[in-house]
Amino acid sequence: MGGDFAPDEIVRGARQAEAEGVEVLLFGDPAQVAATDLKLVPTTEVIAMHEDPGPAVRKKKDASVARAAQAVKNGQASAMVSAGNTGAAMASSVLRMGRLSKVARPAIAIPFPIEGREQPNLLLDCGANAECQPFWLLQFACMGAVHVRDRFGVKTPKIGLLSIGEEASKGSTLVKEAHALMSEPGWQERVDCSFIGNVEGRDLLETTADVIVTDGFTGNVMLKTAEGVASKLVEAVMAAFDSSDECRQAADVLLPALQPLYDAWNPDNTGGGALLGVAGISVISHGSSNAAAIKTAICMAQELVERQTILHLEKALAALNS
Amino acid sequence: MGGDFAPDEIVRGARQAEAEGVEVLLFGDPAQVAATDLKLVPTTEVIAMHEDPGPAVRKKKDASVARAAQAVKNGQASAMVSAGNTGAAMASSVLRMGRLSKVARPAIAIPFPIEGREQPNLLLDCGANAECQPFWLLQFACMGAVHVRDRFGVKTPKIGLLSIGEEASKGSTLVKEAHALMSEPGWQERVDCSFIGNVEGRDLLETTADVIVTDGFTGNVMLKTAEGVASKLVEAVMAAFDSSDECRQAADVLLPALQPLYDAWNPDNTGGGALLGVAGISVISHGSSNAAAIKTAICMAQELVERQTILHLEKALAALNS
Repeated sequence: MGGDFAPDEIVRGARQAEAEGVEVLLFGDPAQVAATDLKLVPTTEVIAMHEDPGPAVRKKKDASVARAAQAVKNGQASAMVSAGNTGAAMASSVLRMGRLSKVARPAIAIPFPIEGREQPNLLLDCGANAECQPFWLLQFACMGAVHVRDRFGVKTPKIGLLSIGEEASKGSTLVKEAHALMSEPGWQERVDCSFIGNVEGRDLLETTADVIVTDGFTGNVMLKTAEGVASKLVEAVMAAFDSSDECRQAADVLLPALQPLYDAWNPDNTGGGALLGVAGISVISHGSSNAAAIKTAICMAQELVERQTILHLEKALAALNS
Repeated sequence: MGGDFAPDEIVRGARQAEAEGVEVLLFGDPAQVAATDLKLVPTTEVIAMHEDPGPAVRKKKDASVARAAQAVKNGQASAMVSAGNTGAAMASSVLRMGRLSKVARPAIAIPFPIEGREQPNLLLDCGANAECQPFWLLQFACMGAVHVRDRFGVKTPKIGLLSIGEEASKGSTLVKEAHALMSEPGWQERVDCSFIGNVEGRDLLETTADVIVTDGFTGNVMLKTAEGVASKLVEAVMAAFDSSDECRQAADVLLPALQPLYDAWNPDNTGGGALLGVAGISVISHGSSNAAAIKTAICMAQELVERQTILHLEKALAALNS
């Protein structure tokens, strides 16, 4: 029931995922979800995009997102996917599934496309925790490493700590303390990753680090800045392409060459974000997700189940603290 | 002596500014600055891009950037422009010129182009203060308002506070406390600006706010993320344009239509950043500045002198606290 194009695009995406062999369980209002070919668990409530997530999840016990999270907890589902209110998906996941052992705070991990490379970079936390402790950032690093290994096949991920200069002396108190923690010996070997030190805003789309770790305030600003700049530039380029008959003809020649760039930035192809640190797989799709994006997200969830990522997260978190 | 193309491009830019009627005083090594047509104050030291700014400014008393700041303090110059080590330009300005009365911390203010509008948005602080107090953000708002009024002619600037949600309840403790301070009645009328509440990362290039206020950590990450995303996208588009003879021909047709976009994002045309809160005009240009960028920066400094911006900053800061 969540997302700008729910329930129709969600249902279509679910149908496409079923066609790929994934078993899908929908949660929603039967009056709106006209999909007799799919399994539907009827729910009566919806958490809207603008609602304050915490109170809404506590109050609306029959919200589709809350029931989906409950189904993962019960073992009725192996993973959940939501394109609705991100805070509500997060709160539902945390409240219903609980946290993985030893996790201080779950974090939202979002992939960013790298030109000419199939594997994207991962940024976390993109908004779950506006304020963080240094140790949480170390846990984010650990969970991010497991996630890019299970999702993108990076054997020993490079971890960068977001700061405003490369030197360990640069940045906020939080970053300096996190840098000291992450520089301690042992954990990188135990988690199978390598801490490469501080990275900067411009490294988001570079191959400097596979995982960029930051607090949820900075990560959310970075995510929305990147989305905003990319969409403004694309808009401006498209307006220029459409500015005369001559330009439109020239654009027709160029568009095939621009297709890979378009595909790389198209959220339909990335599968969306993941909430890492809860005791179940919780995939958070963009609010603007269409059927293709939902299908990709469902297939990604399925892959994470098959690769036993929750087990890997538990092992890595235990190794981090050992 | 500072910047990637110093001293040659700096000298050429200075010459171009003189041709526009601005009187320029260069600071640098006479052996390297071969410009007998321009006034040169000989200096013997240089602070390199990678040097730790504070100690370097204290130690290298005859560095070009330190002497330039001293000249503003002495009244020998009306403003300074530097394309060198940003930290060194900042430290020199603060140590030599001192702060304006009541200013807790100076801030770096950077303009961002808005598609289809001549006036850019202003973001501050872009990196002077990794950690901030709520009251400093209120001062940044006040100084930013004066700066966009004097520099871009915005009569009553709209001030946005960067956060991760529009509601006053969203964000870090710093942002929530700053929001409360900025929501207090009176100061907006006294400073002649309007506080529009929280804005998000995507508002950087929107017309939501004329001035976006944040701490120097978040602002620096935002600046470098925006630069990184823009340069990656432009690079990818240019590679597609150059991918075949057919594409190169089509690109020739499109490039004139893309020229306004290119011009808007070209740092040569923006004049660079300003350090607000020091007792003198200090313009901070991009390290990659060429002659055109330096000329624009010098002319911008001249304009700020003519518009008596330091007087306006002093008045607004006094009104803020009254």
